[in-house]
Parts: sequence; structure tokens; C-alpha cells
Amino acid sequence: MTKLVENAAGRLVPAEINGHPAVPFQGVGRYRPQGRKAAPPIRSCADYPADGDKTAPDLKTALQRAGLRDGMTIGSHHHLRNGDLVANQVFKAAAELGVRDLRWVPSAAFPCHAPLLELLESGVIHHIEGSMNGPLGDYCSQGRMRGMGVLRSHGGRWQAIQDGELHLDIAVIAAPTADPFGNATGDRGPTACGLLGFALADSLYADHVIVVTDNLVPFPCIPWQIQGNNVDQVVVLDRIGDASKIVSGTTEITKSPDRLLIAELTARFCDEAGIVRDGFSFQAGAGGTALSFALFLRDIMRERGIKARFVRGGSTQYLVDMLEEGLTDYILDGQTFDLAGVRSMRENPGHVNTSPFTSYNWHGKGNFASLLDAVVLGATEVDVDFNANVVTHSDGRLLHGIGGWMNCLAGRCTILPVPSFRDRIPVLVDRVTTLCGPGELIDVVVTERGIAVNPLRQDLLGKLRGSSLPLRDIRDLKAEVEEIVGGPPAPPELGEKVVAAIKWVDGTVIDAVREVKG
Amino acid sequence: MTKLVENAAGRLVPAEINGHPAVPFQGVGRYRPQGRKAAPPIRSCADYPADGDKTAPDLKTALQRAGLRDGMTIGSHHHLRNGDLVANQVFKAAAELGVRDLRWVPSAAFPCHAPLLELLESGVIHHIEGSMNGPLGDYCSQGRMRGMGVLRSHGGRWQAIQDGELHLDIAVIAAPTADPFGNATGDRGPTACGLLGFALADSLYADHVIVVTDNLVPFPCIPWQIQGNNVDQVVVLDRIGDASKIVSGTTEITKSPDRLLIAELTARFCDEAGIVRDGFSFQAGAGGTALSFALFLRDIMRERGIKARFVRGGSTQYLVDMLEEGLTDYILDGQTFDLAGVRSMRENPGHVNTSPFTSYNWHGKGNFASLLDAVVLGATEVDVDFNANVVTHSDGRLLHGIGGWMNCLAGRCTILPVPSFRDRIPVLVDRVTTLCGPGELIDVVVTERGIAVNPLRQDLLGKLRGSSLPLRDIRDLKAEVEEIVGGPPAPPELGEKVVAAIKWVDGTVIDAVREVKG
Repeated sequence: MTKLVENAAGRLVPAEINGHPAVPFQGVGRYRPQGRKAAPPIRSCADYPADGDKTAPDLKTALQRAGLRDGMTIGSHHHLRNGDLVANQVFKAAAELGVRDLRWVPSAAFPCHAPLLELLESGVIHHIEGSMNGPLGDYCSQGRMRGMGVLRSHGGRWQAIQDGELHLDIAVIAAPTADPFGNATGDRGPTACGLLGFALADSLYADHVIVVTDNLVPFPCIPWQIQGNNVDQVVVLDRIGDASKIVSGTTEITKSPDRLLIAELTARFCDEAGIVRDGFSFQAGAGGTALSFALFLRDIMRERGIKARFVRGGSTQYLVDMLEEGLTDYILDGQTFDLAGVRSMRENPGHVNTSPFTSYNWHGKGNFASLLDAVVLGATEVDVDFNANVVTHSDGRLLHGIGGWMNCLAGRCTILPVPSFRDRIPVLVDRVTTLCGPGELIDVVVTERGIAVNPLRQDLLGKLRGSSLPLRDIRDLKAEVEEIVGGPPAPPELGEKVVAAIKWVDGTVIDAVREVKG
Repeated sequence: MTKLVENAAGRLVPAEINGHPAVPFQGVGRYRPQGRKAAPPIRSCADYPADGDKTAPDLKTALQRAGLRDGMTIGSHHHLRNGDLVANQVFKAAAELGVRDLRWVPSAAFPCHAPLLELLESGVIHHIEGSMNGPLGDYCSQGRMRGMGVLRSHGGRWQAIQDGELHLDIAVIAAPTADPFGNATGDRGPTACGLLGFALADSLYADHVIVVTDNLVPFPCIPWQIQGNNVDQVVVLDRIGDASKIVSGTTEITKSPDRLLIAELTARFCDEAGIVRDGFSFQAGAGGTALSFALFLRDIMRERGIKARFVRGGSTQYLVDMLEEGLTDYILDGQTFDLAGVRSMRENPGHVNTSPFTSYNWHGKGNFASLLDAVVLGATEVDVDFNANVVTHSDGRLLHGIGGWMNCLAGRCTILPVPSFRDRIPVLVDRVTTLCGPGELIDVVVTERGIAVNPLRQDLLGKLRGSSLPLRDIRDLKAEVEEIVGGPPAPPELGEKVVAAIKWVDGTVIDAVREVKG
């Protein structure tokens, strides 16, 4: 049985993860890292082809040349999202080579990776460290994975790799366009996805780096989001992705009257709190509510003649419109959610690539997240101390990754626009099932029944004095919701086994996820 | 007295440099590095301002905050060339702080840094490791510097820093435009210089990084050639450079009939050797002969309807014209020599920044230099074995840096267009005063009296069979020149003291420079 210790947030977390000691969460900003960054091996041009042609005939040969063997760690990335055709082929090739017990470190896994369940069962893959969306998360939840899952934020994945806490033996980078030298970009080609920022850490720190493309161009591939100087081999496949599942042509705003109300309240809150002013910045995701929020905000900006200095994506048509209309100087983009975003990134010098290093890495000399005036995020649960959960549901099942969510909490005003209940299950709870964000970092919760401001933010409350916005105490909101749906959510039926650890942005363990019974 | 050992090129080189053991040159491509790259300290955002404002009131305060103390190593860069106003101020501030025995590691020093001679004399600076153009080189040549100078190529400086052979305590990066977070660019602002590639290694590996600008813009500074996430402090000065000396509005082609002939022969050689074909690439510098070569080549390309895949700068108006005319897909630029180059880099997505990492680092997974179909370089001396010198004159004086010269020798055809003599001193000699480039890497020497092809390149000689080009044996050329000027150059009067070591691209010592007497 895993030995558990109580961390600074009062959560019981494993003292050891997959055989390595783990540091329990010590409080926001408390843990100070020691030592030096991971140092990849020094290579020599004498060992690489002078003509720059690093192509290998196929994935299996490339893995063999990379020295793949039992127990190694493989990195992959989710920029092709649910259209990724590469990761499954990588592990299929590994299986054919007879290799076992691999640790898979995707920046995120999607339902398209469900075929890998078989390789988890057969022993080719030992366990997954990375966001597990959908079936793989469910599998992990059931306690069926041999090792303990480790969930990290985008910034946390960078931090762990950079700090040497997570050593990648081989990184496989799916690249919509690449040259034989290994320079690669995501902003063009038949499977264009935008940027390759999630793979950047791997390209810098992994012992061996393989670029996989279905669109090989003559040197130089420009731009080189991934630099060929960090790449060992290039493999050309017929298809690396299913374009229809990588980006959707359009991303839809919400049509739900409740969600529209939440979006509008969020925008009005930003306005009345004095956040919307010349030179401000915000980040909002690509969910229906977040998109609607951006549209309400845009209307306010147009009306007042206000221009943002920068907005952060995931980018969509809506952010691109703002850029092209002159409502912001820049989009600092971490992920491209639709084709308009990809086009804009390719064509508009004001649409700028970022990476988890620039945006989110807590173990850097600052990052962009703390410069945001407002960040608008989702949550599966929020509790009366403003703690939030983003990975499990109230039934305990682990179905979502962390993404940049944890990292964004460093913003100046963190807002969670959430419905007060979903499918008659309250979102507002006494204590979140899994702690992903400490309440002290969450400033505002916006529901269709009112807005709760964290009492720690007396400055915001001061600005809103006399406002017509429906300001509420979070406990009152929770009580109201429970009355409607007939009480708090049923407690999840959990076993003793810890199936996954949740890492905070600094690499400490903020919570643990337990096996779901029945 | 420095202990000397003979290296694989038959040169006597120091076994130890400034107290640290040195590896003698072992032959081209022979030395294999061991171990892992340098690993900078892990930092935490908790120690940097959440609002991203890293500005310090002045240079002296910034150096104090950086922990400047006796014996430290300071990196600086030459992208402001002879217009740099930063390095002198850095060491003046250090002097005022009473610090001594600093090691200065400029990517190159220029005549504008002559005021630092005083600080070398007074003990504030112990010695210089870096290219020393003009007065500082002369000072070193006279044996007056306390430590041994170390000259590295651009790629070698990256290699040494990356490999941990050269540890920078503090890097000071002059930035024509920057934001308070430390993001910086060279392509705009009153002292725009193009790119900041020489400073990139410092930003990644130095313990402490200070950006110095005279054009502070609100976050984000786009593009971020230097990423603020690697920067500790930002200092704003009135002026960081003298724009008139950073870039010249125009760079002139040669007017000398001899040099024009050399340039034309070089272009014709490339043509007849089959190098000039669709998709080819070349690199030429910004000297008068190299520029004229580029123009002759352009004429050939126009005439035949040939398009290059990429050309490499130092960029100038001439390369920019080729890009804009569609004669090349890309300029892969390492340094911008005139305002047209700066503008093009700022505006044209086909004008791409490179760095010593991408272009020249021998301890990477390949680099761009070996992909060049032709490289056209200068030399102070070439000997009958095709060995070449680029740092000293025949009188032994060390007056020039290496630049990217050594790194470029990896190109597929290395051509040295040189006059057969200068000021009545032969350029073709029996044995070069200082060995910078082993003859096996130098393919062709073009003089106004004929073209000598390295006998190792029988393939080239085969292609030129029946050519009307004046192909000559290099020994015959040398004999002819000696007859004209009355014999070989007088041997330099050198002392025993080794004043500088010349590092090969892999960090081994290829030659030593001795004190010049009288």
C-alpha cells in the first residue's frame, strides 16, 4: 500500500510515486527548487550526416536506432488532439519490437488513443504520466494501470522535464511540416495544427528526438518551431493526423441561456472591476462559455474604444477577429483551436507562438501567466473555500487533464464561470473531490445564480461596491443549489488504492486520486 | 613558462590555459565530447516580480544585485559592432564597484572598446576570451595581458558555453528594443542592429542575465529574439549604441580591378563546377570582394533562371535584393550588416534569424554550415597545403577575430578568394603563421593570378576539365608571387610567451599565438 502523508493543503498524498520519493505540496510559492536543470548529452556533428539528411525508413527502424528498450520513457504531444495518428503507431511499433514496460509521457492523451488500452493490458506500456482525457482516464480510475498516473499542468510538464524530475529517453514529435534536418512547424501542411509548443521541452531535453511528418519539405522548413539541431531522426508517414479531428473549422459559442448569462456576467464583472482598460490583457479558453465571454468583452471594448495589449489563446476565429479588427496588439497563443487560428498564426506577425516555457513554467525567471489581468477558466467542482477541481467528477472518476489551468491561476484575477450544477449534480460543494487549485488563487466564481468574490480580494469587493451585479456569498449560493437539486452530491465510492498523483506547478504533490469502486 | 604539446596538426599548443587543462587538436572530426551539457540553476517564479517588471535603476545596481565579485566571468556581444556603448559602461561600473580580475568573454571586441585597455592595465579586467579586433588584439599580441587570450569561432563560443567549458557568471545583453520582463529584439528601435543571435547562448546558460536597452516597450516585446524567461534584470540607458557605427547605410562593392577579377573568377568557378543550380545555397561575407562575388553570381542566376533555396549572410542590400527579386527562397541570416538587412529581417518572413546554435555549433545534432553548397571566405594567409590563417598577419600580430570562419569550413565547397599579396607581402606562404583552418577543409583558393584547387578535391578538378578558367598549382602561384614581391614574407619576431590560444570548433586547441617582439 502506498504510504500517504498530509500536505499543506490538508490532503493525503503519496510519499513516493512509482518508486521515487515525492515532495508534498508546501503551500503556494513556498517550495524552493534546488540544484541545476537537466543536462542533455553533448553530441557531435561528426555523428550526424553532413548533408543534413536524418530521415529513417520507418518508425520501427527509428525506434531501434534510438536504442529503444524495456522500461524507457517516451514523450509525445497533443497538438493533433483527437486527430493524432502518431502515438498509437509508435507504441504499436514498440510492441512489434517486443519492448515492455514503457512509461508514456504524453502532454495529453485523447479518446483517439483508446487502442493503447490494449498495450497497457499486454504490458508494452507500464503507465501514463500525463493528462488522460476520456477512456484512458477512466481506465486509470478503475485502478487497472500498473503504475501510478501522474497528472501535471502544461507548465508542470515543462518544469518536471527541465528540472530532471522527468527524464525522457525518446521523444516523438508529430510535425505537420518538417525538413530532413528535423526543423519542424505546425502552422502549415495537410495536418496543420498551429504550433508545436508542447513538444519544445522534449526537443531540448530528451536524449533522443524523432520528428514524424507527413509533409517533408526541402531544408529549410520555415518557421522552425522545433529546431532540427535538437533532432536525431526524421520519419515520413503517409498521414500523421486526421485533419477533421485536429481543428474544427468553427468553434461554437454557447446557445444555452444559462451559459450565456454566465458569460455576460463574467464580462460585466471584468468591466465593473476596472479590468477592461487600455493595454489590458486576458486569457479565455475555447469552450462555449469562454467564447461567449470573449464576445461580450469585445462588445464592451468596441463601445468604449478600448484596446488590449495582448490576449492569450487557445486561439479561435473570435480572437483572430479581435486581432484583425485592432482590438488587441497581439495574440500570445499556446494552442490553436480552429483553422482561423492556424491561418492567423501563419500569416500575422501579431499572432505569436508561445510555449509552456514562456507562458507557464514556474521554475523560470517569471512567466507570462502572472501578467494576465484576467483569466477565465472552467472547473468540475468549486468548494466554499474557493478551492477548485478540474480533473475528476464528483463521482471520483478521472476524466480530464489539467492543461494550462493550474498555471493560469497565477493571473491577477482568476475567474471561474461555472454552472451552479450539471445534470442535477452541484458544482458548488463543501470540499472538492480532488484539489487542483488552492482557493487563495481563485478570485471569483460566476454562476447563473450570482457572482461570488473570494473574501481575500477585498480590493475587488471595494471596486464593486454599489454595483448592480448579483454579488453573493459562495455558501449561500451552494445552499441554494442544494435546495434545488435535493442536496449535495453523493460521496464517491473510492477504494484505498491511489491511482494518480496531481502535481502542483512546482512539482510537489497537491492531491491524490483514488480508485473508483463499482 | 607555459608547457607546450604538439597537436595533430604539428603545432605546439599550451597544455593548460589560464590554469585549466586544454585538449590539443586531434584532427578534423576526431575529438568526441563526453558528458552532458552545462546546466544552469533552477529558478522559481516566486523569486521574480509577479508583475513582470524586472527593471533595475542603473547598471551598477544591476551588477550589484547580480552578485558581481572579483574573478567573475562576464559575457557581452558584438551585434552593435563598432557602435557598442554598453561593454565600456559595464566595466566602468565594475571598476567603480571596486571589483577586480574579471574575465571578459565578448563574442567580439572592436576598436570602440579601446578604453578598456585602461581597465586591463589597472586590473579590473584580467583577460579577454573572445575575438579581439584591432587595439585589444594588438595589446594581447604585445604580451601585456595578464591571462592568456582564447579565440573561438562563433560556433566555438556556443560550444564552449553549452559544454560547460566556459561558464558565464553574468551576461550583459545590449538590446535595441526590450520590455520590462526582459524579452528583447534587435530588429527595431533607434539602435536597431538586426538580430541578437550571439547573445542567445548567454541567455540560456549564464547564471545571471541582464538586458540593457535604450528602447523600453510595454510587454510583450515582439519578436522576442531573447526570451525574458531567461532574463533576470533589465536596465534602461539613454543610449546603448552609436547607430552610425552599428550598421552602415550602404556596404560597398570593391572598386579594385584585381579584386573584381577575383570575385568574377570565384563566381565563374562556382558555375563551372556545377554548384550554381536550382535549389543551391551559398554563404558570402560583407567584404568588398564577397559582395562583388554575390553580384556576379546573381547575374549568372538571372541569366539562367536559377533560384537558390537559401543564402546566408551577414546580410546586406545585395542579398536582400536577391530575396525580393525571387532569386532565393530564404536568407538565413547570422548577422545584419546594413539597414536594408535590418528592414528585411523585420518585414520579410523569408529573411530568417539564425544563431550560432543552428548555424555553427559543432557539438549539436548537425548544423547548417555543412549544408552550404559554397562558402566564400577571406584569409590573411594561405599556405601550400591549403591551410589558412585568419587571425594574425605575417608579422605575427593578432588583429582579427575568427567569426564564423572556422565553422563555415564544414561547407561542401570552401573557397578563399584572396589577393596573392597585400602591401607587397605575399598572402600565399609556405606555412601559415597561425593555423585556423586545416587544409583538408579548404577546397579552392582564388587569386587574381589564377585558381588553385585542393588536390584532395579530384571531383572538382574533374568537373573543371577543359575549363577556360586559369587553374594553377598553388606552389606555382606562390613562386610567382614571391618573384614579384622579392621573396617570402620576413619571419615574424616572436617571443616565447604564448599570448593566445586558438580553439578549433570542437574546443580543442589548434594553434597558439606568441608574443610579438619590438
